[in-house]
Amino acid sequence: MAGSEVKADLWINEYITPWDIYSHGVTNVLAYQKTAYQEMYIVETGAYGKGLVLDGKWQSCTGDEFIYHEVLVQPAMIAHQHPRAALVLGGGEGATIRELLRWKTIEKVMMIDIDGEVVTACKEHLPEMHQGAFDDPRVELVIADALKVLDTTTKTWDIIISDLSDPIEEGPSFALFTKEYFAKLKRVLNPGGYVVIQAGPVSAPEIKYHARLINTLKTVFNNVAPMSTITSAYGAPWGFALCSDEPIDTLPDVETVDRMIANKTTNNFRFIDGSSHLGVMQTPVYIKKAIASETTVYTLEAPPKFFGMGVATEY
Amino acid sequence: MAGSEVKADLWINEYITPWDIYSHGVTNVLAYQKTAYQEMYIVETGAYGKGLVLDGKWQSCTGDEFIYHEVLVQPAMIAHQHPRAALVLGGGEGATIRELLRWKTIEKVMMIDIDGEVVTACKEHLPEMHQGAFDDPRVELVIADALKVLDTTTKTWDIIISDLSDPIEEGPSFALFTKEYFAKLKRVLNPGGYVVIQAGPVSAPEIKYHARLINTLKTVFNNVAPMSTITSAYGAPWGFALCSDEPIDTLPDVETVDRMIANKTTNNFRFIDGSSHLGVMQTPVYIKKAIASETTVYTLEAPPKFFGMGVATEY
Amino acid sequence: MAGSEVKADLWINEYITPWDIYSHGVTNVLAYQKTAYQEMYIVETGAYGKGLVLDGKWQSCTGDEFIYHEVLVQPAMIAHQHPRAALVLGGGEGATIRELLRWKTIEKVMMIDIDGEVVTACKEHLPEMHQGAFDDPRVELVIADALKVLDTTTKTWDIIISDLSDPIEEGPSFALFTKEYFAKLKRVLNPGGYVVIQAGPVSAPEIKYHARLINTLKTVFNNVAPMSTITSAYGAPWGFALCSDEPIDTLPDVETVDRMIANKTTNNFRFIDGSSHLGVMQTPVYIKKAIASETTVYTLEAPPKFFGMGVATEY
Amino acid sequence: MAGSEVKADLWINEYITPWDIYSHGVTNVLAYQKTAYQEMYIVETGAYGKGLVLDGKWQSCTGDEFIYHEVLVQPAMIAHQHPRAALVLGGGEGATIRELLRWKTIEKVMMIDIDGEVVTACKEHLPEMHQGAFDDPRVELVIADALKVLDTTTKTWDIIISDLSDPIEEGPSFALFTKEYFAKLKRVLNPGGYVVIQAGPVSAPEIKYHARLINTLKTVFNNVAPMSTITSAYGAPWGFALCSDEPIDTLPDVETVDRMIANKTTNNFRFIDGSSHLGVMQTPVYIKKAIASETTVYTLEAPPKFFGMGVATEY
Repeated sequence: MAGSEVKADLWINEYITPWDIYSHGVTNVLAYQKTAYQEMYIVETGAYGKGLVLDGKWQSCTGDEFIYHEVLVQPAMIAHQHPRAALVLGGGEGATIRELLRWKTIEKVMMIDIDGEVVTACKEHLPEMHQGAFDDPRVELVIADALKVLDTTTKTWDIIISDLSDPIEEGPSFALFTKEYFAKLKRVLNPGGYVVIQAGPVSAPEIKYHARLINTLKTVFNNVAPMSTITSAYGAPWGFALCSDEPIDTLPDVETVDRMIANKTTNNFRFIDGSSHLGVMQTPVYIKKAIASETTVYTLEAPPKFFGMGVATEY
Repeated sequence: MAGSEVKADLWINEYITPWDIYSHGVTNVLAYQKTAYQEMYIVETGAYGKGLVLDGKWQSCTGDEFIYHEVLVQPAMIAHQHPRAALVLGGGEGATIRELLRWKTIEKVMMIDIDGEVVTACKEHLPEMHQGAFDDPRVELVIADALKVLDTTTKTWDIIISDLSDPIEEGPSFALFTKEYFAKLKRVLNPGGYVVIQAGPVSAPEIKYHARLINTLKTVFNNVAPMSTITSAYGAPWGFALCSDEPIDTLPDVETVDRMIANKTTNNFRFIDGSSHLGVMQTPVYIKKAIASETTVYTLEAPPKFFGMGVATEY
Repeated sequence: MAGSEVKADLWINEYITPWDIYSHGVTNVLAYQKTAYQEMYIVETGAYGKGLVLDGKWQSCTGDEFIYHEVLVQPAMIAHQHPRAALVLGGGEGATIRELLRWKTIEKVMMIDIDGEVVTACKEHLPEMHQGAFDDPRVELVIADALKVLDTTTKTWDIIISDLSDPIEEGPSFALFTKEYFAKLKRVLNPGGYVVIQAGPVSAPEIKYHARLINTLKTVFNNVAPMSTITSAYGAPWGFALCSDEPIDTLPDVETVDRMIANKTTNNFRFIDGSSHLGVMQTPVYIKKAIASETTVYTLEAPPKFFGMGVATEY
Repeated sequence: MAGSEVKADLWINEYITPWDIYSHGVTNVLAYQKTAYQEMYIVETGAYGKGLVLDGKWQSCTGDEFIYHEVLVQPAMIAHQHPRAALVLGGGEGATIRELLRWKTIEKVMMIDIDGEVVTACKEHLPEMHQGAFDDPRVELVIADALKVLDTTTKTWDIIISDLSDPIEEGPSFALFTKEYFAKLKRVLNPGGYVVIQAGPVSAPEIKYHARLINTLKTVFNNVAPMSTITSAYGAPWGFALCSDEPIDTLPDVETVDRMIANKTTNNFRFIDGSSHLGVMQTPVYIKKAIASETTVYTLEAPPKFFGMGVATEY
């Protein structure tokens, strides 16, 4: 079909809501696997580079993953100022640990992912994402159920990042968006530490799930700051939650942050600087109102339920 | 198909890039018309409410249009502080003038749209968008070619908002994203006034078009501040340009803005407050870099060229 | 989108199987209605003319409905040779009665359709299909539940045509593909008469439903001849069942049929002549084998069950 | 997405016309290659088994290829009665030669395909199609440009089958649907021999291309019989042309054919027997009329032109 305006024959069709589909045209399939936990594709797309797809949900792609991963990681690092030990739950592509390793202060990173087959495939096919991070001597990769590690570990961390796939019913992340799980995270957090959660889409029709996650986190942490940013390959902007028992500065000084980045990191961010860090800390009114009026708390007994295509049923 | 998980039979398929399609499931078609200028649908969708579609491009929908329209209008109004006269180019849905009319300081609004048939259909089918704005005595609606009005008018305005559909080749907005057009806007701008342009998607793979628009505007105005926000129904975050010969404060004080909104407006925004206004003024690094390295200037001789499906060809 | 290669913005996406979707590009929506029984669209498409869509399933379109309707009606008429009274169940578009009225021998046609709103819309928007048939004095239109009419009528007919939409769970045709219903048809059939059923797709992956319908009909009629033809807008070839207690000639003489058509009809068929009538009476081996090995009989207790998108679940 | 009603994440979207798309849900990608001539996918689908896709066009799939390949091959063999030498142009899957080898009379088969990489991939991934045919000692596989072989060979054949992919502009089959090419086939045909061409879709909106091919063939052969059958994965029924300088019997005796199949073949056809052979020889009125009124002849100077997505532009 070369030469015609429509470029692709093969498409990844992702349901964003039950009434909205985002289709990414695929130019090559690099890997396909039914792992013990999920169905995995690594594909090349026309506009968004290489992408990882798990159980039909777009996880990240080389074309814009820097937006997701920098906003996931850097605000917590900046808030902490001297992060030394970090824990990542999920994050199979290796891009989350890549972001952590940009900090000269970081001494050790533990990454726990349940699905070793996905990690292996990402190592091989997505070097643009991990950029060698798995080989960094500061990194310890643990293939295990995060719940089991959290229950038994005696270690603690300055930064904990929960970078899990959305809680679809058939997927492996089902119980990891609940009050009980967040309490486990807090138990292994150092004083003065920060927890970050990828916290779902924040598009207007889908805002309820994000609001409920924030509300759930507020039952565990003294302070929870919602963050959001302009991801596009997901068909929706994305939300995050920055959590701590310490106060969280949502109006940080731009120049101070720029100096900190210059001094303490490799200083090669593609999204975050003092200004855009300030930007992601600001929350639109409709998100604030949705959070303020929310009363539901996700628990193991009543976890979030996504519909079969990986979209929250809570319409 | 009631009862099944996939809800829609009828879909609006919009090419976001030549390799990416965003499909919105349609539950009803409220209006369909081939006007003198474009092909128009007004549809009801499952997740995003009622939407206006022109020449196959999603214009806005009741589900999230407040994000687009508040970010289009309010930062300029806040920057000006005392806006009295405003000009809108395009904006057929009436939501842009609705946003202007929220300001008690506003005395007169002129709206120029080339396509009276679209305006009439929006008046009838999209009351949620215009909310009666067309009937406000401060509003003068002119159905005309904006270029002709701009060339002949002796009026001037504090705020000028260019809310035009993207410059697809077959569409009516082709010449209105050029240096010459922007100079015409400046001619009718009051001293101390602000011009805002909807300035295309700012997703990573599409950033070039936005960067070129900003670069073009910089040849006309002393100061051009890019803005961006988390629109989702477009399948991409959206960019805007705030232009003035006055300095533009990109770090406005949150509380001062909140007070101004409380005092001078109807104070019922759904997206903008002091904090989120501050947020949209911050620009991610990749957008700043794309703008900084851009040299192309769009002119009547070399205007932006979108491919037939309404996406910039400049890949 | 005029001028580009991909022509449509609006699409009817029909699930043909749970893994196959046929999308028809829509250029206009002529009618949309939620009737008391189903959801109806009448649309204009790019390649297939005007189409009727009920509950998300493509019913027929001006571009190729002559194939479906001629094969539905004419083989039975030809087999009978002197049809005078005909009954149509369903057939809202009016194309089935149009085909009956081509025969000079026909004296009266009763058409029973449950959904008067669909019939009214077809009358208005699909004149190419009915071609005035509803105004023919030989036609009596009854808006009613076919089951009730069949149970109470004292009339009988030479030809009975069951032209019903597929038995999707939410639709109105659920009980009308069962042994009990077919027995009701037989009760009102004249000696020497013929019954025809639209009998589902006959594509290789979907053949089971057709085989079960044929098997069910064999429990009611002495002779059941499967027929199939090359419909394309349905995304599958279509099957029919010609039923009678009389022998059915599956190798009719071509010239004899051509003469009968010349003498007894308006002789303006677009699909059927002696040769193509002979063709539709021939059944491919895989269909014959599927029928021969079938044991299921559809009954009111165990009717066919289509999945929510209108495709047989029996994969 | 296991467990939900919509089964696939990955789809092959094929444009059937510029306004119609048939999408097959893919459950696995077995092979992907940019060969010297075309782009190739071999995929597993949910409903139609394994499929071969070249330049975005669906070539054949294990779910219903027996329909295409039996109708392509067997009517010519039956017409000839004693075929000994056969030539296949194209036919990379090996299913066409498989059909030839079912005849005990066949002594040698030459298959010429331009794309050795596609043949190799089909050998590996599509054993259900070739069923070992490539290893049959009667088969000679030649990877070459058919035109060059035809111009230089001194061999002749009883049966010649042109099983080429559609003549899309970028594809390798462009010149092989012309009068000049058909004349080359005739030069190497034995007296009493038969040529068969896959001759495009015969759906009502696409019939012009088929009619023009038949018309073109009539300028080369004394007798040309159109044939058509109920393929479904192509989104359209398919046409073929059976050509000879001998008379072609379009009303063959069913029992005679059944006896010939029993005596001279492996007698394990899934589509063809005497009855269905008779069926495919019958041609609907609209196809006959389209052929009768056609005047265009495809030549090297004016070959058929398909639009970029592989569909005839001749709308």
